[in-house]
Amino acid sequence: MKRILISALVLLMAGWSIAATDNEDGSRLWLRFNRTNTTASITGVKGTAMSELQAYWQGAPVVLKRQKGLAADGYTIKTQGGKIMVAAANDAGLLYGAYHLLRLQQTGESCAALDISEKPAYDLRILNHWDNPNGTVERGFAGKSIFLNPDPERMKLYARANASVGINGTVLNNVNAKPEALSTESLQKAKTIADQLRPYGIRVYLSINFASPIKIGGLPTADPLNADVVRWWKDKVNEIYRLIPDFGGFLVKANSEGEPGPQDFGRTHADGANMLAGVLKPHKGVVMWRAFVYKAQSSDRANQAYEEFMPLDGQFADNVIIQVKNGPIDFQPREPYSPLFTAMQKTPMMVEFQITQEYLGAANHLVYLAPMWQEFFSFVKPASLKAMAGVANIGDDANWCGHHFAQANWYAFGRLAWNPSLRSEEIASEWLKQTFSTLPWDALVDLMMSSREACVNYMMPLGIHHIFAGTHHYGPEPWYAPRGVRADWTPPYYHKADAVGLGFDRTLKGSTNVKQYPAELCKLYNDINTCPENLLAWFHHVPWDHQMKSGRTFWDELCHKYDDGVRAARRFLVVWDTMQPYVDSQRFLEVQHKLRIQARDAEWWRDACLLYFQTFSQRPIPQDMEHPVHNLDEMKKFRIPIGMYENPECGYTR
Amino acid sequence: MKRILISALVLLMAGWSIAATDNEDGSRLWLRFNRTNTTASITGVKGTAMSELQAYWQGAPVVLKRQKGLAADGYTIKTQGGKIMVAAANDAGLLYGAYHLLRLQQTGESCAALDISEKPAYDLRILNHWDNPNGTVERGFAGKSIFLNPDPERMKLYARANASVGINGTVLNNVNAKPEALSTESLQKAKTIADQLRPYGIRVYLSINFASPIKIGGLPTADPLNADVVRWWKDKVNEIYRLIPDFGGFLVKANSEGEPGPQDFGRTHADGANMLAGVLKPHKGVVMWRAFVYKAQSSDRANQAYEEFMPLDGQFADNVIIQVKNGPIDFQPREPYSPLFTAMQKTPMMVEFQITQEYLGAANHLVYLAPMWQEFFSFVKPASLKAMAGVANIGDDANWCGHHFAQANWYAFGRLAWNPSLRSEEIASEWLKQTFSTLPWDALVDLMMSSREACVNYMMPLGIHHIFAGTHHYGPEPWYAPRGVRADWTPPYYHKADAVGLGFDRTLKGSTNVKQYPAELCKLYNDINTCPENLLAWFHHVPWDHQMKSGRTFWDELCHKYDDGVRAARRFLVVWDTMQPYVDSQRFLEVQHKLRIQARDAEWWRDACLLYFQTFSQRPIPQDMEHPVHNLDEMKKFRIPIGMYENPECGYTR
Repeated sequence: MKRILISALVLLMAGWSIAATDNEDGSRLWLRFNRTNTTASITGVKGTAMSELQAYWQGAPVVLKRQKGLAADGYTIKTQGGKIMVAAANDAGLLYGAYHLLRLQQTGESCAALDISEKPAYDLRILNHWDNPNGTVERGFAGKSIFLNPDPERMKLYARANASVGINGTVLNNVNAKPEALSTESLQKAKTIADQLRPYGIRVYLSINFASPIKIGGLPTADPLNADVVRWWKDKVNEIYRLIPDFGGFLVKANSEGEPGPQDFGRTHADGANMLAGVLKPHKGVVMWRAFVYKAQSSDRANQAYEEFMPLDGQFADNVIIQVKNGPIDFQPREPYSPLFTAMQKTPMMVEFQITQEYLGAANHLVYLAPMWQEFFSFVKPASLKAMAGVANIGDDANWCGHHFAQANWYAFGRLAWNPSLRSEEIASEWLKQTFSTLPWDALVDLMMSSREACVNYMMPLGIHHIFAGTHHYGPEPWYAPRGVRADWTPPYYHKADAVGLGFDRTLKGSTNVKQYPAELCKLYNDINTCPENLLAWFHHVPWDHQMKSGRTFWDELCHKYDDGVRAARRFLVVWDTMQPYVDSQRFLEVQHKLRIQARDAEWWRDACLLYFQTFSQRPIPQDMEHPVHNLDEMKKFRIPIGMYENPECGYTR
Repeated sequence: MKRILISALVLLMAGWSIAATDNEDGSRLWLRFNRTNTTASITGVKGTAMSELQAYWQGAPVVLKRQKGLAADGYTIKTQGGKIMVAAANDAGLLYGAYHLLRLQQTGESCAALDISEKPAYDLRILNHWDNPNGTVERGFAGKSIFLNPDPERMKLYARANASVGINGTVLNNVNAKPEALSTESLQKAKTIADQLRPYGIRVYLSINFASPIKIGGLPTADPLNADVVRWWKDKVNEIYRLIPDFGGFLVKANSEGEPGPQDFGRTHADGANMLAGVLKPHKGVVMWRAFVYKAQSSDRANQAYEEFMPLDGQFADNVIIQVKNGPIDFQPREPYSPLFTAMQKTPMMVEFQITQEYLGAANHLVYLAPMWQEFFSFVKPASLKAMAGVANIGDDANWCGHHFAQANWYAFGRLAWNPSLRSEEIASEWLKQTFSTLPWDALVDLMMSSREACVNYMMPLGIHHIFAGTHHYGPEPWYAPRGVRADWTPPYYHKADAVGLGFDRTLKGSTNVKQYPAELCKLYNDINTCPENLLAWFHHVPWDHQMKSGRTFWDELCHKYDDGVRAARRFLVVWDTMQPYVDSQRFLEVQHKLRIQARDAEWWRDACLLYFQTFSQRPIPQDMEHPVHNLDEMKKFRIPIGMYENPECGYTR
């Protein structure tokens, strides 16, 4: 005790103090309203809007009113005669208006004379949960599925967090769907969850297994043109809507990575999607049909979704939405946009982002993803899409997302699904102000804004991609290529390092992938001298001595990019440490712990990649940067004993 | 094969090449003469001189001649009438002259018109081997004892390496001596070794256990004033000299760290040393009596050697030499000189350096020690000493010293024992030129010259000392203080970190250790404002906010010093990597491997010490440096499972 008193005294004298705030486990997310006196309440979404305001709003009296002529889910907020009028065409709009007010309040904005008009860019703003029936979450790094034993209080918080940023749909189960997802027992559980989410304006959806009629229906086929199959689906859909009248629809991964699909019965993606769409149509349900397909024998995985789906453009029913990952491969730290987005002109499309950091350091690395998503929108016009989905990063960890800062990606996804032209900085700032009480925000906004590029730099700069470990997607294994593993599941397929250079030739002389892009971009990407350098090794097999804009050779630039990433990751620690006086010590220490892992991992990535690529480049690492401190042979022997359902406790250990 | 050809071509085009030199394991040390045609030879030391020249000298004919009037072991080399005359008063002088010529040849110096006159600063230039009878080497990091099964070829190389730098004595066994070191069997073995070393002018010495008359003599006492005891020693010494007529004498660790000594029988160090000296005197043997003593109950270990030995000044026989470690504690990366050196005016003294890096990263860290030893000589006049000893870093590893660059410390020790005023840079340059064929020397000389300060910085800057791990002296454990361990074997005894500051108050208001130094130095050290900053925490309990010359607070300066050390260690890797084209790949990779460990260890030291001390300072780590990437609690749990006989395979692992 005496020691503590003395320490405190010294601290005061030094003008520096340890965080005095109470510890927090992060479970409150960005929703840190203070409770005021509650009054009577009503039910339903409008009731939620009212009770949230009654509990937490500290400003002028608010009047909620339904008003025709406004867009669905949109709202206006106006100060009139000492009151605040929130108007919307539907109850959800009122709820979003209420959360808008609370956001203004929590971020310290003036609420004196409001004149706000908002409407969402997309009708469907959806989270995809890759949750399995046994409670594991594929590529989940924040514990088990929150839907395993849906705790009412927790589900309410989950719904509230989603509604606060405008998310209005959630797919409850993994796209690699078990047929049992449609069993009566599963549907009963889905109903329970749907009932819990409904007051927050959130609909539930399900991923389905295309072979369900065989697997749980006992039919001899799942051919979408077979009448018994169609009848089975009709019955099943009717069963669902009896339980969940506002059920959203199906998400389908078909003929992809071993999942069954219409091609198994000689039918096309359109045949399969349209059959389901027809069954759902009377209930106003939709089919989200994924375009994530690729075959083991193809010479360029990046070409395949286009090749398989372009011939079907215009053949899909109007309640089918083709769900396409933002890039043509698979949620890499940086990819060009998937060329399907600009190519398919006659088909409703939606983008699938990955909020969970499967390829960006799991729940150990601080990587703010909004800038990556906005990079996508600089190529694909938001208005050309019909909806937006994000693969959730949510689990039953106290802090929901494993990493306190991973919450910002959930938050940002929702905000961008509402308005893709919001600036990433603003979103970061909004989230920070709501999530932490008082902080020197700017430094953290800068940190967040630079974090994605830092991650690209220390993992796979200059267009390199998919050089992750074979058994997980956390660490580097650019050398991973055991016999018998299909080539497009091994890094050398993607980096193609040799004595000449590094990268995948997708030019007109290579895989011709560039042809899938509009003529202008095709020309730009096809020429090594005009191709953006951050995608150079994506589109070109870049000679080691290729001259970069910096004046460096490609090899030297590569080295420097990796080192830039390491230095950036270390810098995050420095910045975060300055926050100690402002953050409760639990969250401070938990974030610090993760940032230390990240800094060490960055070094691991740099060393593994540079030392491995150096065996091809045979060039020295430049003298004006740090040199690897780990040994290649030891890194090659290292394994992290995890699968796709866990967050690694830490990175490289010897 | 095709890949190799392409690679080679690319390399040539890039103006960069992989080392083409044959691999080397480092066993040749700096002795890389090329064999010429041999002719007839003679025996003895002079014969060695002749055969070395006949085999390797490529210049003008050399004439070796004995000449009176020159100092023992000294020599002149003069070019006369197309011949080179090497003259010396004894055969050893001729041998040293021969090695001088070969050194000139190997370092590329001109041998055209030589006029050289050399004589050693000390008659005794001695290696202390801390080798145990079972072959382990205390604080040895290069394998087992070379004396366990003394291979004639290996012993010849060992002798040759020593003679090449002027070392003329070797203590075969650990100062923590077993009584059995004097058994007839052990002495037979010592004779074998002595016979192997004699042709290179090297005498053998033995460490003895003061209780030997009891333990192997069967006497009831080892009281040095007891007539039976004296007679036992006389008989034993006669036995030794019958076997080894040029035996050098005894090295004694008595009443220190549990070893027996004259105090056990109510006698003084002088009583014990003089008895042995009297017995050895007729044979011209010497007693090297160590002053490394300290008691568990003392308030300042640094005071104790002085307190115990000063009262005995002038009482020692003239063939006793008091062997004092360079600093008052124990071979730390930086200590002030031991005040005994300037205090004891009437006693022959010798300095004991530690060549083996017990406290400087073992055989994993590149730390060139010559600058540390010369720092000592800037306080203690070389002429005030009678001899110089170094604790060997030699084992049965192929490369002798575990780390290729550790050979430089063996080399430098010998060169400084010959001439303490040689510049460290020159010695480094000499060693490099002989050890590696062709290198851009300057960068490596710079690296070596900066390596000791780098080590001080990342381990214990600004006068901090002895904060090593409890069970080994490799890594940091400033927190190590389990119950029951004597206080002066735990780091907190030395660093005394608390809320006020850091360091051991040895001023006149503290332990008064400063009083043991000459008045001028006492005054300098006693005042925190004049005390050299690199010894600040040695002599003062420095307040965290003490203003340093840099303008920083002590805490900030401490942080920066640690970070300077980390950056320096990383820089070593960069410099070494530029040497790849010039070094055979075995030695290149082995050194690179060690430098990577060193860089990682430096980070470990920085993180462990700063995070631990921060629990006292309660001050933030400055923003203009990297922040710790490891976690204190994890570092505290970490153990390296080694004792005092092994080199750790690597440093911190989680």
